[in-house]
Amino acid sequence: MSAVYYEGAGAFSVGECVVEAPGPGEVRLDVAYCGVCGTDLHIAHGAMDGRVRAPQVIGHEMSGTVAEVGAGVEGFAAGDPVVVRPLDSRGETPADRGFSHISRNLRFLGIDAPGALQVSWTVPAFTLHALPPTLELRLGALAEPLAVACHDVRRGAVAPGDTVVVIGGGPIGILIALVARARGATTLVVEPDESRRALAAGLGFAAYDPAADDVAAAVVDATAGAGADVVFEVSGSAAGILAATQYAGLRCRVVVVAIFPEPRPVALFDLFWKELELFGARVYEPEDFDAAIELLADGSFDVARLITAVEPLARVPAVFDELVSGRPAMKILVDCRA
Amino acid sequence: MSAVYYEGAGAFSVGECVVEAPGPGEVRLDVAYCGVCGTDLHIAHGAMDGRVRAPQVIGHEMSGTVAEVGAGVEGFAAGDPVVVRPLDSRGETPADRGFSHISRNLRFLGIDAPGALQVSWTVPAFTLHALPPTLELRLGALAEPLAVACHDVRRGAVAPGDTVVVIGGGPIGILIALVARARGATTLVVEPDESRRALAAGLGFAAYDPAADDVAAAVVDATAGAGADVVFEVSGSAAGILAATQYAGLRCRVVVVAIFPEPRPVALFDLFWKELELFGARVYEPEDFDAAIELLADGSFDVARLITAVEPLARVPAVFDELVSGRPAMKILVDCRA
Repeated sequence: MSAVYYEGAGAFSVGECVVEAPGPGEVRLDVAYCGVCGTDLHIAHGAMDGRVRAPQVIGHEMSGTVAEVGAGVEGFAAGDPVVVRPLDSRGETPADRGFSHISRNLRFLGIDAPGALQVSWTVPAFTLHALPPTLELRLGALAEPLAVACHDVRRGAVAPGDTVVVIGGGPIGILIALVARARGATTLVVEPDESRRALAAGLGFAAYDPAADDVAAAVVDATAGAGADVVFEVSGSAAGILAATQYAGLRCRVVVVAIFPEPRPVALFDLFWKELELFGARVYEPEDFDAAIELLADGSFDVARLITAVEPLARVPAVFDELVSGRPAMKILVDCRA
Repeated sequence: MSAVYYEGAGAFSVGECVVEAPGPGEVRLDVAYCGVCGTDLHIAHGAMDGRVRAPQVIGHEMSGTVAEVGAGVEGFAAGDPVVVRPLDSRGETPADRGFSHISRNLRFLGIDAPGALQVSWTVPAFTLHALPPTLELRLGALAEPLAVACHDVRRGAVAPGDTVVVIGGGPIGILIALVARARGATTLVVEPDESRRALAAGLGFAAYDPAADDVAAAVVDATAGAGADVVFEVSGSAAGILAATQYAGLRCRVVVVAIFPEPRPVALFDLFWKELELFGARVYEPEDFDAAIELLADGSFDVARLITAVEPLARVPAVFDELVSGRPAMKILVDCRA
């Protein structure tokens, strides 16, 4: 039993992995670890049945090693530790203005095409990034969400000395806070959940409860009245997007990281009055994966603290049931070899 | 009878102008023309009684000549044609991050301090911009709204070859369209009012009725599917801000020019999916006035077509009543010497 299949309507099964020999330009990987992402939970809720063609293997936050190399693939050999940037933008057109990573015909591996929750995964070689051989594969599986955070921080143009507010202290919020700090910023994290707030505090961030603390006053205090240089809205909440423009200083950036499926009220008066700049941010570009791997490799990040548990592949259907039922978790990794 | 006073609660009176000798660093102006702005209409609706201390002269879109120069003023002499950039940012603090024009203690002349609807107006010399002697003063009175448009277009980073959509074809919308065209853009104007749409068409813009035309399809056609490079939301309508993100292409800019007093739904999914950048824009900086005067001076703009009527000062109370009652108008100028 070596692959997890999404069966539609929120159900999963465990079955045999269909090992695919790599075609030209492809690489077959032995998957080591695969993280469970918020997007996977949306799939488990049945909210993405329009994109995921059941039965299909999902999962996209992986690490592994090269098993086999197809014709014409250069730069990778069997045994190399790698991660996959799960974007297939071969359908890009000139109307995409050169932004491959958000091109209109983008196929996201693990959603629009088979994913990594299996022992063997065959992918185009252009999706690969090499990992340093010294990096634990368990931590390598965090490269994908960390690349998201690197992209978000780059969209926010975070600079040394900046004061940054991260609204929402889940995995992406905490990774954004870590990357912003690595870029020289002082970072405040706003999170209603006590255990997530404790994790943020344990990582050295000033952590605030939006229900109990006067966050606006804390931002004013931290910035001598100037307001935050960059605010990241990662909570996806109505209160979060309204607070984001409130916390930001004159001409400052608000990066909208969370996915808001429906239009939500935004304080456009703040946008006008302070000439704010509200940036959308989605997935990542190759340099964001490079930056993420560099940050993992230098070891200064205590990202291992984000790993709530490592679960065997066979437990994935149960794990999704538990998560849908509210099991508290920051990041759950699946050991695809277990 | 040489000054118009706002009396509070939406009422105006005409009375004697109090001629103030210029103090050190000040200049006394003979006002020639003063335009009626949307902000003045908000005052006439009683919506800004918290800022305007009645009885007070309002008005801020002016042209005139220097009458008297106070001690220490250099670069200006009696008879010089000028316009006023009506921003007093002497209360700026380090918390304003260097953005004087939107600094927290900004005083707007004509709102927070006496304005230009009078024959004689005394202002700080640092607010002055010289007009070319060859420029009609009637056109010079359009420098202020044109500076708004120049600022908005600069915030939008409009570049040659861009396709621009302007939502809202009032005076500022039309001026934005003219400036965007001067910067090399192809510009579409979206406006529900037939007469305003006719004016836009008369100026050579493709003009669309949002109630009758498929504007989204027109934008797709105009851009070979790529979407607009820059969208300006100048309508202040709920439909306008939702359409703005729809029309924009990948990584494109939406400049929010209209004032939305309350939070309004924004399609944050568009912002995320297309990595849009939503920019607030407010008033202007000195270089925007320089650019506006340059555009007026080169004569290639048919801005005179925006002038609906020139009214004598004594008719201002009646004009406000007419405008509040729905008199159709693009730009009404007041001849302060008549």
